[in-house]
Amino acid sequence: MTPKTKSGLRVNKPNEGRLRAVIEKVKPEIDGGRFPAKRVVGERMTVEADIFTDGHDALAAALLYRRKSDSHWSETPMESLDNDRWRATFEVTEIGAYLYTLQAWVDRFESWRQGLAKKLQAGQDVAIDLLIGAGLVEETANRAPPTDKKRLGNFISILRSKQPDAGETALLPELAALMAKYSDRRWAVTYDKELRVNVDREKARFSTWYEMFPRSCASEPGVHGTLRDCEQRLPYVAGMGFDVLYLAPIHPIGRSFRKGKNNELGAGPDDVGSPWAIGAKEGGHKAIHPQLGTLEDFKRLVTKAKESGIEIALDIAFQCAPDHPYAREHPEWFRKRPDGSIQYAENPPKKYQDIYPLDFETDHWKELWDELKSIIVFWCEQGVRIFRVDNPHTKAFPFWEWVIAEVKKDYPEALFLAEAFTRPKVMYRLAKLGSKVMYRLAKLGFSQSYTYFAWRNTKWELTQYFTELTQTESADFFRASLWPNTPDILTEYLQFGGRPAFMTRLALAATLGANYGIYGPAFELCENVPRDPGSEEYLNSEKYELKHWDLERKDSLKEFIALVNRIRRENRALQSDRSLRFHPVDNPEIICFSKQTEDLKNVIVVVVNLDPHHTQSGWVELAMEELGLLPQQPFQMHDLLTNARYLWHGARNYVQLNPDTVPAQIFRVRHRLRHEQDFDYFL
Amino acid sequence: MTPKTKSGLRVNKPNEGRLRAVIEKVKPEIDGGRFPAKRVVGERMTVEADIFTDGHDALAAALLYRRKSDSHWSETPMESLDNDRWRATFEVTEIGAYLYTLQAWVDRFESWRQGLAKKLQAGQDVAIDLLIGAGLVEETANRAPPTDKKRLGNFISILRSKQPDAGETALLPELAALMAKYSDRRWAVTYDKELRVNVDREKARFSTWYEMFPRSCASEPGVHGTLRDCEQRLPYVAGMGFDVLYLAPIHPIGRSFRKGKNNELGAGPDDVGSPWAIGAKEGGHKAIHPQLGTLEDFKRLVTKAKESGIEIALDIAFQCAPDHPYAREHPEWFRKRPDGSIQYAENPPKKYQDIYPLDFETDHWKELWDELKSIIVFWCEQGVRIFRVDNPHTKAFPFWEWVIAEVKKDYPEALFLAEAFTRPKVMYRLAKLGSKVMYRLAKLGFSQSYTYFAWRNTKWELTQYFTELTQTESADFFRASLWPNTPDILTEYLQFGGRPAFMTRLALAATLGANYGIYGPAFELCENVPRDPGSEEYLNSEKYELKHWDLERKDSLKEFIALVNRIRRENRALQSDRSLRFHPVDNPEIICFSKQTEDLKNVIVVVVNLDPHHTQSGWVELAMEELGLLPQQPFQMHDLLTNARYLWHGARNYVQLNPDTVPAQIFRVRHRLRHEQDFDYFL
Repeated sequence: MTPKTKSGLRVNKPNEGRLRAVIEKVKPEIDGGRFPAKRVVGERMTVEADIFTDGHDALAAALLYRRKSDSHWSETPMESLDNDRWRATFEVTEIGAYLYTLQAWVDRFESWRQGLAKKLQAGQDVAIDLLIGAGLVEETANRAPPTDKKRLGNFISILRSKQPDAGETALLPELAALMAKYSDRRWAVTYDKELRVNVDREKARFSTWYEMFPRSCASEPGVHGTLRDCEQRLPYVAGMGFDVLYLAPIHPIGRSFRKGKNNELGAGPDDVGSPWAIGAKEGGHKAIHPQLGTLEDFKRLVTKAKESGIEIALDIAFQCAPDHPYAREHPEWFRKRPDGSIQYAENPPKKYQDIYPLDFETDHWKELWDELKSIIVFWCEQGVRIFRVDNPHTKAFPFWEWVIAEVKKDYPEALFLAEAFTRPKVMYRLAKLGSKVMYRLAKLGFSQSYTYFAWRNTKWELTQYFTELTQTESADFFRASLWPNTPDILTEYLQFGGRPAFMTRLALAATLGANYGIYGPAFELCENVPRDPGSEEYLNSEKYELKHWDLERKDSLKEFIALVNRIRRENRALQSDRSLRFHPVDNPEIICFSKQTEDLKNVIVVVVNLDPHHTQSGWVELAMEELGLLPQQPFQMHDLLTNARYLWHGARNYVQLNPDTVPAQIFRVRHRLRHEQDFDYFL
Repeated sequence: MTPKTKSGLRVNKPNEGRLRAVIEKVKPEIDGGRFPAKRVVGERMTVEADIFTDGHDALAAALLYRRKSDSHWSETPMESLDNDRWRATFEVTEIGAYLYTLQAWVDRFESWRQGLAKKLQAGQDVAIDLLIGAGLVEETANRAPPTDKKRLGNFISILRSKQPDAGETALLPELAALMAKYSDRRWAVTYDKELRVNVDREKARFSTWYEMFPRSCASEPGVHGTLRDCEQRLPYVAGMGFDVLYLAPIHPIGRSFRKGKNNELGAGPDDVGSPWAIGAKEGGHKAIHPQLGTLEDFKRLVTKAKESGIEIALDIAFQCAPDHPYAREHPEWFRKRPDGSIQYAENPPKKYQDIYPLDFETDHWKELWDELKSIIVFWCEQGVRIFRVDNPHTKAFPFWEWVIAEVKKDYPEALFLAEAFTRPKVMYRLAKLGSKVMYRLAKLGFSQSYTYFAWRNTKWELTQYFTELTQTESADFFRASLWPNTPDILTEYLQFGGRPAFMTRLALAATLGANYGIYGPAFELCENVPRDPGSEEYLNSEKYELKHWDLERKDSLKEFIALVNRIRRENRALQSDRSLRFHPVDNPEIICFSKQTEDLKNVIVVVVNLDPHHTQSGWVELAMEELGLLPQQPFQMHDLLTNARYLWHGARNYVQLNPDTVPAQIFRVRHRLRHEQDFDYFL
C-alpha cells in the first residue's frame, strides 16, 4: 500500500515508476496553491483539472475533500469533459476551512471493457479477451467483502463459461459498478497539493450595507446624536431593506490639531472633529465617545438592531489622534522624529498633523499586534461580528493575516471588509493574504473588498471590470462590495447627473454586486454638491460636522431603494456574482447583464440607461441558450420595478428607458407562458 | 540576520512580522514552479514579478541566480515597470540547470529621499527631515567598509550642517548609490521558491533536420543501401544546408508477422519490412541491420557527417518485433495473454501482431528501465547526441523523466525530439515532465517536440497555433519542431497543391520554426501520391520497401531548400521563435509575420501565398514600431529569395505572389537608406 499522510490520505510512494496518471492545472488553485479559495456555507465547490495518461488506457479520478478539522476524507468521482478536462463538485456546509485534492489512476478494467465492446461490435473472436477479463475480475474479487465477492464470482464463471452471450454479460453496468467500487489504486496518483477553501457564513457573499454617522441621528437639528437616537433610526434603515448598519467610528475624538468644518485647519470650540481622528483623554479604540453614550447603550443598539434583522458593523481604523492614550503610554509603537516628537502622517508635501500612524516596523511589533487584536476582540465581545477596516493597505500585510486568523479562531463568523482604494494588485493581495512567514499560521484574507465601482460609469468600463471580478480567477478569492458613494467619495457622475444618476448607480450596485452599500442619508437624499469643483469631497461634509437630515423629503429615494432591496431578497440570482454575464446592446448608453441560479429557476436580466439626461433606446441581444431560453419560444420579461410584463421573442428585443421615471429595468425571466393549449376548453 | 538555506541564500525568518514586501506572479514560473523553463547557452533569461508593499514606501528588489552546481548566488537589481511589475535579466552561459529567485525589501532611505525631494520642491522647511536622513545614513555607514564609511560620514556631516544646500546634497545620486550598495535587508522578503531553468546547447533552439531511410541510399535501383552509401549522400544533404541527419531505425527487422509493401499482411520473401519492427535473431536495439553494415561503418558515418557539419540523429522506438531477443530473454517485460503468448499491440478493433509493446506496469519495471537506458547510452557511446523518440506518449511519463535525466548526467549535450502526435496536453506534458514521484531526481522534459504544423494550413490556423506556441507560457518549455511531411504524413495540402504547395510549406516551416525538418528525398522531389484517397500514407511507402530516388531531377526543390536554409543561417532573427508576430493582410490567402533579434539589428518579414493555385495580392499592414521602423521614413525590403529590393513607406504596402514562380518572400528589413544628404556633393 502507498504511504499515508498524517491526515490519512494516501500519497504517492516514492520511487514508484508505475504512477502513469497525470494531474495538472487544477482550478481553483490560486497562485499555485499559495492562497485558498473562498465560498460560503451551502455553496457547491466545483473543482476541475487536466487528467490524462500515456497511451490509450481509460482513466478514473476522484475528488477528495474534508473539513480541515476532520481527519476523514470524503470522495466523489470525477467526470470527464472535453480535451482531458475533468470535473467534480462537493458542497461546503460549515464555516471554516476545507481541504481538497485529487486522485487519478489507470483503470485497467475499463480499458479492457472498452476494447471488448469494440471487438464485439467488429464481430471478432473474444474468447481470450474474456479470459483476460476474468483474471481482472478475480483480482478485484479478492479485495471485496463476502457479498460482493460472491457477485463478482458469478461474473467470473460466466466470463470463463464460453457461453455465446458471455461478452454481453461482461459489458453489464452492474459489473462495471462493482469493479469501480473496488478499483485497483495501487498506482493511483495523488495530486501533490492539498488545496484549501475557506468557508464563511452566507452574509460574506450577500449583504446590503447602510453607512451612517451616529452623531447625526438626533431628532433635532444642532443636537449631538446618541446611540439611543440610532435605535430610533433602525426602522427607517430596516424599512429600506438593509441588513448591515455600518457606523462611522464611535470612539472619543482627538482635540490636538482637530480639523474644522470642511477639513479646515484649526477647529473652533464647537467643531466636533473627524470620527477617524481616534483617541482622546476619554479613551481610545475600546472607548465610546461620551456624547454618543455608554457601552451599555451600544450593546442595546446591537440587540435592537438584531431584532430588526440588522447587524451592526464597526469601523476599524488603526491610527491615533495625538491625544490617544497609546501616544503617551506606548510611544514605542510610533516612529520618533529627531526632536523627540512622534512622527505624524505625511504624503509629502501634505502633512496630517492630527494623525499618528502606527509603526509596523517597531521592535515592539508583537506587543502592538496583540493590542490591536485585543481591540477587535473587545468589540466581538460586545456582539459585533462585522468590521469595515479603514485603509488596511497602509498596514503590514502579515499583520492582517495574523489578526484575521486570530480573531476567527474564537469568532469564526467574523467578517472583514477591506476599505483599500489603492492599486489593483494590493487590493487583490488583501483578499488573499498568506505570506511565506505567517502562512503556517493561517491563510485568511479579507472577507469582502471595496472596489473601483464608484469610478466605473461607462458601459465599457463596467463590462471590463465586472467581467474581471466575476469571470476570472479573482472571483475565487475577491468578494466585491459596491459603493456608489462613501463619505469620501462623491463622484462626478453623481454631482452632475441629479436624481436619475443616483437611481442608476443604486440599480447597478444592487444588481451587479451581491454585496453593496450606500452612505446615507446623503445617498437617498441625493446630496451632490462638492466642496470644490473637481473635488470628490462633499461640501459641509458630515465627516467634520453634525448633520440633520430631512428623511421625509418627497424626493427621497428611500422607496426605490426599499423596492430594489426587496427584489434582491426575493431573487436568489442576485445574491451571488458568479453567474454575471453581459449581453450586447446596440446603444453605448444602455447596459444589459444577467444573473441566474445554477438550476435556472431564477433568471434576472437587468437593463440600465447610463445616461442620466436623456431617454435612450436600443436593441438588446440576449445569449438565449445560457439563460435557458429556446429561440423559437416566446418568453415573458417581468419588470420587477414597475410590475410591467413584456412578451419577448428571440434574442433581439427593443428596450427604452426614461431616466426621469425609472432608468433601469430588472426583469425576471418567466419561461412558462400560457398558450391556447393551456385552456381547458382548447381540447 | 535571517537564516540561510543550504545553498547560502538568506530565507525569511519565521515569525517575523516586519516582512512587508510582497512578491507574486513570477514569470517564468511554469505550473506554480513544478516545471523548469528552457533556454539555450548564450540566451538572456528575463524574469518578471509583481512586487509591492503596504503604504507609500519605496521598494528595492533583486533577481538572484546561480548555476545549480554552484553554491554562490549572483544578483542583479530589478527595474520597476508599470503597475507594480518588476523585471530583471541574466545570461545563461553554460549547459545545465540554473536556479533563480527574487528578493524585495522596503527601502527606507529611498522613501525618505523621495519625500525630501517633494518637500524641497514645495519650499517646505526640511531641517528635521535632514536629521532623519542623517540617522539613516549613519546606520548604513556602520555596516560599510572603511572607505565607503568615510564617504558616508562626509554626507552625514553635511546633512547635519544646517547649510542651505544640504537638501540638494542629500539628493545626490552618489549618496543614493552608496546607500543602495549597503541596503538594509533585515526585513527583505525572499520569494518562497527557487525556480529553475534548464539550459541546452544552441542546437536545441536552432536546428535543420533531414530524415532519410539508409536502405534507400544505394546508387543502383533494387539494391539494399548501406551506411557506406549514406556517406556518399552526405554532400547532398549538407549542400541543402541541413545540420541534423536523422536516420530511420537501423536495427535488425523482425520476420514474424512482417508487413509487405503498402503495409499489407503477409510479407513475401523479398519484402524488407518496416524498420520500426525492431529486433530479430541478429539482435535488438543495440544491433545494426546486417544489410546496412557494421558498428564500425556507423561510427565512421558519424565522423564523416561531423566533418560536413552534420550530426547523426537516431530513432528511439521502444517496441519489439516478436523476434526481438527481449521477447525470449525477458518475457516478464511484456504482458502475457491467458494462453501464455505475449500480448501484441492493439487499438481495438485493430491488431498489430508484428509489434509487442513493452509493459511499463511490469513488476520488473526497474530492470526494464535500466535496459532501455542502456540502449540510449550505448548509442551515445558511439557518438550520437540527438535522438528522435518514436511515440513517447505511449510509454509512462515517469520513465522519460528518469531516463532523460540519467542520460544527461553523463551526456549533458544530448537532445531528445518527442514524436508525440497526440492530444495537446499530453504533448505539453512531455516537454515539461516532472512527476511528484520522480521530480527530486530530475526535471527535464523533451528538448524539442513535433507539432500540429502539418495540419495547420490556413492563415487563421497558423496564426492561432503559432501565437500559442510562441507568445504564451508554453514558449518557455515547449520547443516546436515543424515538419511539413514525415514518412507517416503526406497531408492533403501537399497531395493537391503540387510543387508550389511544397515550396509554401517549406518556406513556412523554415521561417515560422527555428527548428524544422523534412522527410526526404520524398519532400524535395515533391512525392505526393497517397496510398488511398483520404489517406495520409504514401503510395508504395518507403516504410515497407526499398526506394531509389532520382536526386538530379530538374524539378527537385533542392536548390530552393538550400537557399532557404542559407537565409536561416545568415539571419539570427530566424534562429529563435520568441519574437514571432503576425501582421494583418487584407487577403485571407496571404500570411505575413516577422521575427527579429532583440537589438533589432536583424529584422525579417515573411510573406507567403497560401494558395498554391493562384497568384494572390494584398495590402500588408506592418506593426512598424515593433519592427523599429519610423512611420515617416521609407525603408528597404530586401527579398532574400529573389534578391529584389523594394522601397516601402508606412505601415501599408502592396504584395503580390505567384505560386508558379516563388510563393514566398523572405524580406530582410534594411533601415538605413541612402538619401540625397548622404552624397558628398549634397552640401
